[in-house]
Amino acid sequence: MSYSFINETMENVRKKHPLVHNITNYVTVNDCANILLAANASPIMSDDIAEVAEITSICNALVINIGTLCERTIASMVEAGKKSFEIGNPIVLDPVGAGASKLRTETAKQLLASFNSSVIRGNISELKALFTGSSGTKGVDANALETITEDNLDEGIKMAKEMSKKFDAIIAITGAIDIVTDGEVAYVIRNGHEKMRQITGTGCMLTSLIGAFVAANQKQMLESVVSAVCLMGLSGEKAWESCVKDALGTGSMKSRLIDFIGTLTADDCIKGFKGERV
Amino acid sequence: MSYSFINETMENVRKKHPLVHNITNYVTVNDCANILLAANASPIMSDDIAEVAEITSICNALVINIGTLCERTIASMVEAGKKSFEIGNPIVLDPVGAGASKLRTETAKQLLASFNSSVIRGNISELKALFTGSSGTKGVDANALETITEDNLDEGIKMAKEMSKKFDAIIAITGAIDIVTDGEVAYVIRNGHEKMRQITGTGCMLTSLIGAFVAANQKQMLESVVSAVCLMGLSGEKAWESCVKDALGTGSMKSRLIDFIGTLTADDCIKGFKGERV
Amino acid sequence: MSYSFINETMENVRKKHPLVHNITNYVTVNDCANILLAANASPIMSDDIAEVAEITSICNALVINIGTLCERTIASMVEAGKKSFEIGNPIVLDPVGAGASKLRTETAKQLLASFNSSVIRGNISELKALFTGSSGTKGVDANALETITEDNLDEGIKMAKEMSKKFDAIIAITGAIDIVTDGEVAYVIRNGHEKMRQITGTGCMLTSLIGAFVAANQKQMLESVVSAVCLMGLSGEKAWESCVKDALGTGSMKSRLIDFIGTLTADDCIKGFKGERV
Repeated sequence: MSYSFINETMENVRKKHPLVHNITNYVTVNDCANILLAANASPIMSDDIAEVAEITSICNALVINIGTLCERTIASMVEAGKKSFEIGNPIVLDPVGAGASKLRTETAKQLLASFNSSVIRGNISELKALFTGSSGTKGVDANALETITEDNLDEGIKMAKEMSKKFDAIIAITGAIDIVTDGEVAYVIRNGHEKMRQITGTGCMLTSLIGAFVAANQKQMLESVVSAVCLMGLSGEKAWESCVKDALGTGSMKSRLIDFIGTLTADDCIKGFKGERV
Repeated sequence: MSYSFINETMENVRKKHPLVHNITNYVTVNDCANILLAANASPIMSDDIAEVAEITSICNALVINIGTLCERTIASMVEAGKKSFEIGNPIVLDPVGAGASKLRTETAKQLLASFNSSVIRGNISELKALFTGSSGTKGVDANALETITEDNLDEGIKMAKEMSKKFDAIIAITGAIDIVTDGEVAYVIRNGHEKMRQITGTGCMLTSLIGAFVAANQKQMLESVVSAVCLMGLSGEKAWESCVKDALGTGSMKSRLIDFIGTLTADDCIKGFKGERV
Repeated sequence: MSYSFINETMENVRKKHPLVHNITNYVTVNDCANILLAANASPIMSDDIAEVAEITSICNALVINIGTLCERTIASMVEAGKKSFEIGNPIVLDPVGAGASKLRTETAKQLLASFNSSVIRGNISELKALFTGSSGTKGVDANALETITEDNLDEGIKMAKEMSKKFDAIIAITGAIDIVTDGEVAYVIRNGHEKMRQITGTGCMLTSLIGAFVAANQKQMLESVVSAVCLMGLSGEKAWESCVKDALGTGSMKSRLIDFIGTLTADDCIKGFKGERV
């Protein structure tokens, strides 16, 4: 199996320098901007309803992340999503904390009902909350009982494919093991390091990175999401390895993770890819 | 004197993995989340009135920080504080900039009147503004004339104990010398490094860290606050030492401070503790 | 030509420890605060209309950055700007993204009409949008066709001087080549490194840094802006050099840029200054 698509999709991001509109949370927004810049994309953050339609129109993709949603920004998310969908731009939705509060679950559902997302990325409990209406999220981490493991992987893939069909979107369930599917084909990806869980926003950063990858690779949407997931995971692995070597911890790991997003080559990713098409 | 309680309180945070709800400012929120994760706690940031009561109900503690308060979030702070108090969760209040504006002083007083905080952490001028109604804050730093020094330490301890009784809360006055008291017993702590003043949010980060410590140590509240203050100060010392060694400055120091929050052991803290029970 | 004013202006910042009120965006606010602290200034962030006039009154300068503007904060910007102008404090305006949306262009114009800014800093397309009403911004980067180069430098200087006269403000157009002018005298500055474009907020950070420099050097406003631009650019150069040496990337570069803001001496800046008075 050749994963040369990683080369094409990464090259497209680096060459096309896509502009990504992010309506995201104020916790990790700086890291999302920096990861986009490291990947040679350009971020623009804008959440006011008076300008989001106009801003999204000059961009190549829209990322919506509900991490610190409020009434004001929810309206902007709906407005921007509708506009972006209307003009045919890819939309990536990150339903942060869906299941943890009615507001989050209902907002995610409202967004799903207002426009078609190209990609939905979340952990298993967030995505289950959207899919089934059930909750059980512990903060923004996946409920321990609901983690994807080697034992329940087939079940996870099946559920992801069903979600994909239901929402007509590529689904990326991320955790220790990641599943990416367009409803027909699925990829299982095992890159990443458990220490990434001790950095806030690795999920948010990945969502923004996916925004850049789908913006630059609209004819290879599934492959571009897989590439972004691989690049993020591998950067996390390399960042932790480098921190261990220098006796550093998770604070420095965050900076180095962003370093590797910019310095890893497509060859590094193809060689380091720990995944398979299933 | 044995400070073995540092071992117990740190172990409890690492084992219990407490979930801490933060309604905090957008300046330092990312660092607050990362310091909680480094300590093996879990952060959730949420400030919308439509969900704060629900979010705080699934958490183990609530941290309220008024650093970039506005009308919308003040209402959420009151709502979340009342709910958290009702269900018996510890609340940590950081009255950032109290004394610097009427809005901040009045908001802090409104919060104090709306629910009982378990811990109030601030610098001396912020706490004096709450206690006496006087002001004199220069930004978010303690007024130079009002710093706690070895010369006025007894007076500082007396005032802290009075504040503690007045507000029925553990008081943590932090600066070059820190005082932590429950109104009866007081600890004086001299950990930390003056370079920490050149990193924004060391106070905010400590407040969030205290949230994790009290959440995981509800039977040893005073000791858990002392432990958090020690861990923060020692991490700052080690971070600066490490930056000097590598010819780095305060930008890198911030990352390394978070590194040490995760890598320092309880033994390191007990050995490095520069404090006493008074 | 002696650039000894760099020594005087830097010393003044380090001695006077100016307090700078920032109404800025939530993307880069943490870095703005940290760069001010690294330079030995003090930041205060406050954007609520109930307190901005009071806060700005206790400060030495006001920085307004429209990077994530919304209706609520626009009103606060106007209020704070009027107050700051009334009491004679310098105001630095950063019209982030002017030209990218009507809201941004109109807000920038509204601010210009409400009070006199002492300094306006932006990239060429943002400043052109203010000056001519035209747009063409790609996100927050300068439109490639409108970059200041050695070939069009004379034209750039002429336009900057005209802008300066029109707005009665020092103009700082920053990019690969920077132009700073008070309408009569202009400086061309070539410090900086292209990798700075892969860090979000280098422009915002510079704007806040300028706030500290003008606050501490009100009799040498033009020279103080030039000094801030030089310090920022040189810190970027040194940061990247140091990252290359350690095989790090743009994530670590951000931290090290802040490191150098604090550790570079005035002598380093005078020796490293790549500019000229024209």
